[in-house]
Amino acid sequence: MRTEKGLSRTNTWIVVLICLSIGLGIAETEALLTEGVEHYYGIANLVFLAIFMTEYAARLYAAPENPKYKSSLSYALTLSSTLDLLVILSFALPYFGLETALLRVFRAARLVRLARLGRYSLALQMIYEAITDRRYELGVSAAIALGLMLLASSALYYAERTAQPDVFGSIPRAMWWSIATLTTVGYGDTVPITVLGRIAAGLTAVAGIGLIALPTGILASAFTDGLSRARNRK
Amino acid sequence: MRTEKGLSRTNTWIVVLICLSIGLGIAETEALLTEGVEHYYGIANLVFLAIFMTEYAARLYAAPENPKYKSSLSYALTLSSTLDLLVILSFALPYFGLETALLRVFRAARLVRLARLGRYSLALQMIYEAITDRRYELGVSAAIALGLMLLASSALYYAERTAQPDVFGSIPRAMWWSIATLTTVGYGDTVPITVLGRIAAGLTAVAGIGLIALPTGILASAFTDGLSRARNRK
Amino acid sequence: MRTEKGLSRTNTWIVVLICLSIGLGIAETEALLTEGVEHYYGIANLVFLAIFMTEYAARLYAAPENPKYKSSLSYALTLSSTLDLLVILSFALPYFGLETALLRVFRAARLVRLARLGRYSLALQMIYEAITDRRYELGVSAAIALGLMLLASSALYYAERTAQPDVFGSIPRAMWWSIATLTTVGYGDTVPITVLGRIAAGLTAVAGIGLIALPTGILASAFTDGLSRARNRK
Amino acid sequence: MRTEKGLSRTNTWIVVLICLSIGLGIAETEALLTEGVEHYYGIANLVFLAIFMTEYAARLYAAPENPKYKSSLSYALTLSSTLDLLVILSFALPYFGLETALLRVFRAARLVRLARLGRYSLALQMIYEAITDRRYELGVSAAIALGLMLLASSALYYAERTAQPDVFGSIPRAMWWSIATLTTVGYGDTVPITVLGRIAAGLTAVAGIGLIALPTGILASAFTDGLSRARNRK
Repeated sequence: MRTEKGLSRTNTWIVVLICLSIGLGIAETEALLTEGVEHYYGIANLVFLAIFMTEYAARLYAAPENPKYKSSLSYALTLSSTLDLLVILSFALPYFGLETALLRVFRAARLVRLARLGRYSLALQMIYEAITDRRYELGVSAAIALGLMLLASSALYYAERTAQPDVFGSIPRAMWWSIATLTTVGYGDTVPITVLGRIAAGLTAVAGIGLIALPTGILASAFTDGLSRARNRK
Repeated sequence: MRTEKGLSRTNTWIVVLICLSIGLGIAETEALLTEGVEHYYGIANLVFLAIFMTEYAARLYAAPENPKYKSSLSYALTLSSTLDLLVILSFALPYFGLETALLRVFRAARLVRLARLGRYSLALQMIYEAITDRRYELGVSAAIALGLMLLASSALYYAERTAQPDVFGSIPRAMWWSIATLTTVGYGDTVPITVLGRIAAGLTAVAGIGLIALPTGILASAFTDGLSRARNRK
Repeated sequence: MRTEKGLSRTNTWIVVLICLSIGLGIAETEALLTEGVEHYYGIANLVFLAIFMTEYAARLYAAPENPKYKSSLSYALTLSSTLDLLVILSFALPYFGLETALLRVFRAARLVRLARLGRYSLALQMIYEAITDRRYELGVSAAIALGLMLLASSALYYAERTAQPDVFGSIPRAMWWSIATLTTVGYGDTVPITVLGRIAAGLTAVAGIGLIALPTGILASAFTDGLSRARNRK
Repeated sequence: MRTEKGLSRTNTWIVVLICLSIGLGIAETEALLTEGVEHYYGIANLVFLAIFMTEYAARLYAAPENPKYKSSLSYALTLSSTLDLLVILSFALPYFGLETALLRVFRAARLVRLARLGRYSLALQMIYEAITDRRYELGVSAAIALGLMLLASSALYYAERTAQPDVFGSIPRAMWWSIATLTTVGYGDTVPITVLGRIAAGLTAVAGIGLIALPTGILASAFTDGLSRARNRK
């Protein structure tokens, strides 16, 4: 079933089915898209449930043939198989009146599993290696970011708590502002209005540039390094 | 007509004409800039139409002299020639009452074609090679981004749908917020107001930093690599 | 007490205690989290004060045994020991009616000290070296940023002062806008409304891209370089 | 007067004077900072005018001693000397009732000139070389950015012109939105509200990530390359 160059015909069909099931999961939360056609969504849901249950059952049945798994049960307990079960639950649970919005995300996770086949496998591995190789450097960056967030939140709490008690009246409240500023998202729903608060905010925004530059630089060097190692291996 | 060092006199004139025609196309959509001088715009439009039609006709006529093209028709079917025709249509169609706002963009595309001449040719090729060399890594980055967008949209839909049904009442609606956050654009027209939503939004914003760092690092290593290969070739 | 591979049992406990004390310091500023349970916060505060004072006293007592320190006093004057004292003050001062929001940040600083142990030590040093190696390049970037901020603020003051005297009526006021734009945070609380102001703002936003690209590129090359030097050392 | 390691005593004083004069120029535009103390600003202004005029006169007088300049006039016509004159004009012109907000920026430009001395000289040169080495690559990036801005503006004009004629009623108006989105500033003063407009805006925001990644990657490779060349030269 695996080919080095691309996806097999079976897997191509599974990709199409997964994408359709993700689209369905997204679309059926929007009233404007379901109004008047609710029963079509119900049918599609049932069809997907049937297909994925059949696939799951077939995989369980065939599992013992693979020497990696002793029994169908030991296959059923693998991460890959558990994901398949979660996808099935995301189709089945609504019939029991349960919300599955977050469960549906696992439908997309199945695509990641397929990405390990074919041409994307090497790219995925390269990115994975770059991140794990630099996990301590990235960890230190994250720790610096956390420290800056605490510092910025405390400073803004100190500067703005009397002027804007609703949004800067405590450090946890100020954290909403500080995370939006340090990541340079800057929603603008909460902004400092005092002179002291604005000076602290300006410094925080500049620190945000550093927080983008640091992991980017670390990853850039990791990719450059990973490539030269890949060449030396040859 | 081609020179390695710069643009020939003819091409310099064409660049000036294209830039003027782009400027005209932009300006004539703004009422404040056309009020009272509509007929000047009409004249300019006609002049450009005449010039570009003449150029197109001349190129078609001269095409058979180039051994690359068997006939004027085979030249007319090239991408480059089709672009020329679209530019002409962007001037001609308004006389038939048709909107050409999106068509006018092709006027700018003609500049890209000219960029292939002269000094910019090598730079364009280097950027093109860096992107195509890393198409799988960039593809994986895009897939991770898409997965994060689905996850963030689902999480915010779950957290905010009762508090703000208008903007987070469905996953497609929450996607507008999640794309603005993951790209760190952060318009601020839709922001979470619940505690759970803000925690999920903070994590999304931090993930957005990763989504900038990943392709940037990939491209940085591609450019570093491309340069060292270019040297080894010499 | 130091191990190359991880944190000792004692240090693991200290990390947990520090994290809890940071959490407490953040939580007790928020009325919603303290309402009705103020006395539990008081008890937790006292417990932390007792623990950290005991630790501080024990370290002072044991200091003379370390040949690095002549006496308990010479240890007490080290940066590391002063930080410990500031953390104790952040617990003790509220009893004297003093605000300690900014002092509490030093609790997090203690984590940085622990990060110097174990696996993160090398990563921290690498990042530190990358930044100090390029301090002049990063300094020039900062100077360019400062110059651009002055230029942008002056331009917007010039363009918008009559249209929006409240937010662009002076260069210091325009600086709040210019720092939000150059760092690409873009709160949107102050935006130009005149044509001239918007053109200047567009150029400022583009310059902001450069201000992200410059330090990121500098750090990326510093990390690439630091790695190859680390290998040559071996 | 030049030293390789730092600034001479004279230059240190000039740096202090320039910084003070920049601060004065910024502060005197803000009514809250000048109210009641206008005459102190007037005196400070006169003092700076006197100092910089004396320095300018001294430099002109001493110029013929330097073999680089034939006469005081040939020195007066250099860029460096013209900057000095502009700084003097920024102090003198207000007495003739002329606005000098933009002229004052040249006071900061004098700092750049001093940066060429001492330790920052090499860093400035490295950044300058990295940018000029890749001027064609950066030029192509800028051209791609410009093309994307035109495309995004045209698309949003097409999608939103009937829904929001005030802010998307023409391509030039839509450009204000598109530049804020492509640079990921995202003020949020103008946002699409139609489904089509939001899809186009999402794609534009994603393209904005590319526009940050491209020049950053180019500069990162330029810095890595510049360093290895600097070593080979030794």
